[in-house]
Amino acid sequence: MNEFELINYIKSKQKIKRKDVIVGILDDAAIVNPPDNKKIAISTDTLLEGVHFQKYDPPELISYKAIAVNLSDMAAIGADPAWITLSLTIPEIKTNFIKKFTRGLFNISEKFSLEIIGGDICRGPFSITIQIQGFVKPEKYLLRKGAKFKDDIYVSGSLGKAAIYFFLTNKQYKKISSSIFLSSRLKYFKPKPRINLGKKLIGIANSAIDISDGLSGDLQHILNCSNVGANIFMENIPIASDLNIFTKKEAMEIAISGGEDYELCFTAPSSKRRIIKKLSKTLNIPIIKIGEIISELKTNFLFKGYPFEFKKYSYQHFY
Amino acid sequence: MNEFELINYIKSKQKIKRKDVIVGILDDAAIVNPPDNKKIAISTDTLLEGVHFQKYDPPELISYKAIAVNLSDMAAIGADPAWITLSLTIPEIKTNFIKKFTRGLFNISEKFSLEIIGGDICRGPFSITIQIQGFVKPEKYLLRKGAKFKDDIYVSGSLGKAAIYFFLTNKQYKKISSSIFLSSRLKYFKPKPRINLGKKLIGIANSAIDISDGLSGDLQHILNCSNVGANIFMENIPIASDLNIFTKKEAMEIAISGGEDYELCFTAPSSKRRIIKKLSKTLNIPIIKIGEIISELKTNFLFKGYPFEFKKYSYQHFY
Repeated sequence: MNEFELINYIKSKQKIKRKDVIVGILDDAAIVNPPDNKKIAISTDTLLEGVHFQKYDPPELISYKAIAVNLSDMAAIGADPAWITLSLTIPEIKTNFIKKFTRGLFNISEKFSLEIIGGDICRGPFSITIQIQGFVKPEKYLLRKGAKFKDDIYVSGSLGKAAIYFFLTNKQYKKISSSIFLSSRLKYFKPKPRINLGKKLIGIANSAIDISDGLSGDLQHILNCSNVGANIFMENIPIASDLNIFTKKEAMEIAISGGEDYELCFTAPSSKRRIIKKLSKTLNIPIIKIGEIISELKTNFLFKGYPFEFKKYSYQHFY
Repeated sequence: MNEFELINYIKSKQKIKRKDVIVGILDDAAIVNPPDNKKIAISTDTLLEGVHFQKYDPPELISYKAIAVNLSDMAAIGADPAWITLSLTIPEIKTNFIKKFTRGLFNISEKFSLEIIGGDICRGPFSITIQIQGFVKPEKYLLRKGAKFKDDIYVSGSLGKAAIYFFLTNKQYKKISSSIFLSSRLKYFKPKPRINLGKKLIGIANSAIDISDGLSGDLQHILNCSNVGANIFMENIPIASDLNIFTKKEAMEIAISGGEDYELCFTAPSSKRRIIKKLSKTLNIPIIKIGEIISELKTNFLFKGYPFEFKKYSYQHFY
């Protein structure tokens, strides 16, 4: 395959044909029809070999995750995802690789009725940049800013399992069963973008973020943007059960700082507790209260009332 | 600088504040307000170290070009550019580099009233992916398809100068004056996206493309999409004057296949000749008729009526 054949191959495998796509893949630009009275949410994320995935990782998981992490940004803002572009840099085009990669791409796109409307292909070190567009109603979206004094702080799902794989690939842990290896790999590569939860939280949450870099770091963005502080109750953190291979303290540390969970962290006034409980049931997503917003500009991690000191596991690109 | 400081630095240097940007850099997604009754044109392009630029190239030129090539896609479709996202992968954050890089970024963004609304930063091999959004009126845009039998074929500007630098960096030519080196480098990194021309061609041109990969290859996309062929009159090709350091034949070959010109190639019926001549004058952009559309599915390159055989200089990522 050359680059044009590759583009045509991807195009031929796309089943989703959205009505709002007027011109799709293969012209100088795509042309799409934004819905009346909606605003457009736009986000982009890059995955890179050696950082976000390794050479030996299955191509169908890599492409799945590349889209999932972008969907998670749409979830965090409460948007309805619609269109994506794919910029792919690969060292060579191997047919078998491309087939698997394309399968992962459409596996997730079809679940969320996403259409790939364009992209770019280059030869070079393997990386994928997805840009995503979705819709929000005017003034109906979730931002990082907006958390208010006395808000409850919530997190969806359970935390820390994806990080096991991330650290495994970074060779920090070697003694691990192959079943945990495989299931944490799946969790790492196939996070569940909380699109429905994000949309439902509009009008309920005062602020939200997706926790890709770890709860402790990402919560801090909410606090900084909202000019508030927080008490976090470590005993309430929903730690993924697989983390019982670590000490209790390590497990808590990984859960709050390991990253790669792509769950939502959000704040809401206490008057919304009942509706959030109901939402958790309806959507079948655990939503746990893990803390509260305070007016002082401090973040207190507390375990049963005592300060909890912790080592940070999360990845930072630059120091 | 760490990654957050870098994002804040870029944000602080942005002067353009578009009214249609509701939420810009620094949340999980940007939120923008598409104009009523317009469609959105979307495109993306990646520039990669070692392919599109080299380690020693000035950072302010690299970032300039990254945006320019995306603007050129907007020009080709006749769109009015508005918003961009920037995905930047760099091996390390050096303050001096970032200052220059950011200067180039805003140098061109300000010229075209573009706002950077988001992005992503990773550590890794240097590459830049820009995604761009612009506006078109319903059914008022230029596509590759649409060229009709007997259409004239036009090209804007002059061709081949940017390719000199590209081939220089690929060490194909060593004996060249430093003034040509510098001016071809400028042409290579600072192409003029033909936004105004693109918009004016709506209702005049039947098809259009921007010639980034070389006239001969890109024209072929128009022909394939339109299911027609072409006669190209080599004696009419507007060859950049700096190409006189090559033989006449080499110069023609580089002009039609070297690429990196980011001019527009378009087709229009002969009834539009007068208006195109006027447009060329008004915009002060050379627009030269270089051929004609034929019904036969062949592309005939002719020099004074005789078949012109040529070597292709253009870059292809994969073979």
